[in-house]
Amino acid sequence: MKLREIYQDKEKYLNQDISLEGWIKTARTGKNISFISLTDGSSFKPLQVVLDQDTKMDDQVKLNISSSLKVQGRLVESQGKGQDVELKAESLEILGESDPSYPLQKKRHSAEYLRTIAHLRPRANLFQAVFRVRSLLAFAVHKFFQERGFVYAQTPLITGSDAEGAGEMFRVTTLDLKDVPRKEDGSVDYSKDFFNKETHLTVSGQLQAEVFALAFRDVYTFGPTFRAENSNTQRHAAEFWMIEPEMAFADLQVNMDVAEAMVKYIITYVLDHAPDEMAFFNEFVDKGLLDRLHNVVDNDFERISYTEAVDLLKKSGQKFDYPVEWGIDLQTEHERYLTEKIFKRPVFVTDYPKEIKAFYMRENDDKKTVAAMDLLVPGVGEIIGGSQREERYHILKKKIEDNGLNMKDYEWYLDLRKYGTAVHSGYGLGFERAVMYVTGVSNIRDVTAFPRTVGHAEF
Amino acid sequence: MKLREIYQDKEKYLNQDISLEGWIKTARTGKNISFISLTDGSSFKPLQVVLDQDTKMDDQVKLNISSSLKVQGRLVESQGKGQDVELKAESLEILGESDPSYPLQKKRHSAEYLRTIAHLRPRANLFQAVFRVRSLLAFAVHKFFQERGFVYAQTPLITGSDAEGAGEMFRVTTLDLKDVPRKEDGSVDYSKDFFNKETHLTVSGQLQAEVFALAFRDVYTFGPTFRAENSNTQRHAAEFWMIEPEMAFADLQVNMDVAEAMVKYIITYVLDHAPDEMAFFNEFVDKGLLDRLHNVVDNDFERISYTEAVDLLKKSGQKFDYPVEWGIDLQTEHERYLTEKIFKRPVFVTDYPKEIKAFYMRENDDKKTVAAMDLLVPGVGEIIGGSQREERYHILKKKIEDNGLNMKDYEWYLDLRKYGTAVHSGYGLGFERAVMYVTGVSNIRDVTAFPRTVGHAEF
Repeated sequence: MKLREIYQDKEKYLNQDISLEGWIKTARTGKNISFISLTDGSSFKPLQVVLDQDTKMDDQVKLNISSSLKVQGRLVESQGKGQDVELKAESLEILGESDPSYPLQKKRHSAEYLRTIAHLRPRANLFQAVFRVRSLLAFAVHKFFQERGFVYAQTPLITGSDAEGAGEMFRVTTLDLKDVPRKEDGSVDYSKDFFNKETHLTVSGQLQAEVFALAFRDVYTFGPTFRAENSNTQRHAAEFWMIEPEMAFADLQVNMDVAEAMVKYIITYVLDHAPDEMAFFNEFVDKGLLDRLHNVVDNDFERISYTEAVDLLKKSGQKFDYPVEWGIDLQTEHERYLTEKIFKRPVFVTDYPKEIKAFYMRENDDKKTVAAMDLLVPGVGEIIGGSQREERYHILKKKIEDNGLNMKDYEWYLDLRKYGTAVHSGYGLGFERAVMYVTGVSNIRDVTAFPRTVGHAEF
Repeated sequence: MKLREIYQDKEKYLNQDISLEGWIKTARTGKNISFISLTDGSSFKPLQVVLDQDTKMDDQVKLNISSSLKVQGRLVESQGKGQDVELKAESLEILGESDPSYPLQKKRHSAEYLRTIAHLRPRANLFQAVFRVRSLLAFAVHKFFQERGFVYAQTPLITGSDAEGAGEMFRVTTLDLKDVPRKEDGSVDYSKDFFNKETHLTVSGQLQAEVFALAFRDVYTFGPTFRAENSNTQRHAAEFWMIEPEMAFADLQVNMDVAEAMVKYIITYVLDHAPDEMAFFNEFVDKGLLDRLHNVVDNDFERISYTEAVDLLKKSGQKFDYPVEWGIDLQTEHERYLTEKIFKRPVFVTDYPKEIKAFYMRENDDKKTVAAMDLLVPGVGEIIGGSQREERYHILKKKIEDNGLNMKDYEWYLDLRKYGTAVHSGYGLGFERAVMYVTGVSNIRDVTAFPRTVGHAEF
């Protein structure tokens, strides 16, 4: 049986004979009695297994860390501290002896070192907690949207056009780089490539999600996106997952309502379904984590305009590295000051200057700002960016022209405004950033199974 | 409010004043009375809106197909056939008039034509049904595994090694194709590429999922995979989604048990949650669909060995294009004959000759076959392929050598057998094929939002 089944219903299995497979997390060997901390990975909490003279096992048995084994015995109330049940082993059999060179011995390892053994680190406590919480968060996202009737749209990753007109992209090709075909004028002949044209990995599924929103009303994407940016920070990866809801007949207020409800929902889900993991993060990763998350769940998010935010920052008297003036893009220092110092809770900032935002955002009546919204949270800064989309055909067309985008690439996008256009809105949540926020883990490489960053594509 | 809310609780809204936004699916205009079939995309079933002389609206209002509008009125029991409630409109306002050039007029269009307007086809009935069912199926997959405690592992798409040693791959690069950097010997200098080495798009997350199974016991992936194969069939796409569960301490029998339970679960979920859409497929796409799906849900799947399958096919007297002999890879004609003619239900075929299967599959004691399993279903043939994995270090190492794979790429994979190896198994389900199977739609391009196939990467 599985460890998780035992912990789901301890009463049922207490004083029963059970059989478990798993791996040795730690072992203490004594003359008459030995203890194994056993896990099968199905539960964050291991089970103490007690071996004594009566336990049937090989005389020469070695209890190496990470060896796999099968143990049969009786589940009893524990005599020791720190656990409520333990297994009194009647027999034990090693299934796969772990080589003594196993690198994850009991001592502490640096995060950098653990990344070099990304194929083994999921066995360490921190990563057991991180990847289980990541899984639960992903499910909570789906559950939130599905319960509200949103349609999950799986938008393409290989794209023939640059979706946002922003962000450096990876090329996808089957051309032979040793002998790239050329046209007569010397340029690369992409008609010989797999898709008969230039293709890249997408930076966003938003524009395609809009197609679905104008057919299904409420939709969301949840899939990988890519940035070929040479930025070696704790928060950037070349490959990451994004959640992009998009809603027709929904303005910026509805957009914020849904974003706020979603953030609260997924945090609550994880607090409910992974209490041991969350307690672990709170103890070993980020002391204030649980307080901060409860604060998010229990309070209304603040909503202020960019113009108000700029006023508050200027009035604060705080000295910023990057001076605040109306028109600047808010930096992380400004965002964190707003959410951590001024409001002490999550804040939506809305209606940014149009010059610093994307072409598809809806122009406000003042013609200076657009109906954009960013959600800032304590400890991180921006975690969600969204907007009401420009639904007016002629204004959007002019924006595409003014931004120097290739009109041919956007004809289908304009069609959405030509055939029954509707007010619509959406936002993007970087999934790894959400995982970082909820776990307190500060490096994106440590919430990603096999991180892809500049110079790194191992495993 | 949303249409889906009305259909979820008609009693509640009957004889109430409500307000709805949506699009015109069809309109019949009369002198005194007009009818609109209205949808907002939140429900497959439209709502009939009745306009008469009392309805407040613009005198010159045009009821173009796909125009968006807002209508306010009373929900009443319908006088007409085919619907039980209708909206008696008190006022109507066109929000976004659809241009008369709207290509999805009421007549039938070819599947080929609709693919050229993939940004509008989600508004057509067939695609309303397909993409909602696709969304529900995706959620059912997550729900099935999460309820059983499986951890969702998001494995990388950009890979530095060829995961299966099979399937042509797309290159991912940031090198300038007009000026590819070279090493002194003339070969391409990939140390100048983004990841400092050659990278491709993955063909499978299985090997990485094994990492997670040996840490969390039960895990699954659900993400995009890629094949740069020049195959222009109804069943092949260059980009598609795969589900790959992987379980430690699980042999081939458990693997089949889980696969069978999953297939039944996701079909049942869709039958329960999309009865209107499923009735539509049964009527307009595939007359025998519902019978076939109920047959799958209600019966145990057959389980036979490859050797038995070959015997049955040879004894059948059936003339096949491709003759049957022990050692051949079963073709679709053989698979379909087994599941449709001989057993009339889904069949697991196990223990294939090792020569025709992948290096990582566990060798049986007969040394001729491996512990593989394929699930064959009526109407399609193979829908799931899986195996018990080779967990014995030395046998796996020799297989890697014998297959001419680069040992350095697989050291981490071998480590899983060195540090506490365990019997483990898993399988792969192509998600689009599952959608095709459940909807009866026969072309993968018509269950994919924006299909990527040879020569096609539009939108």
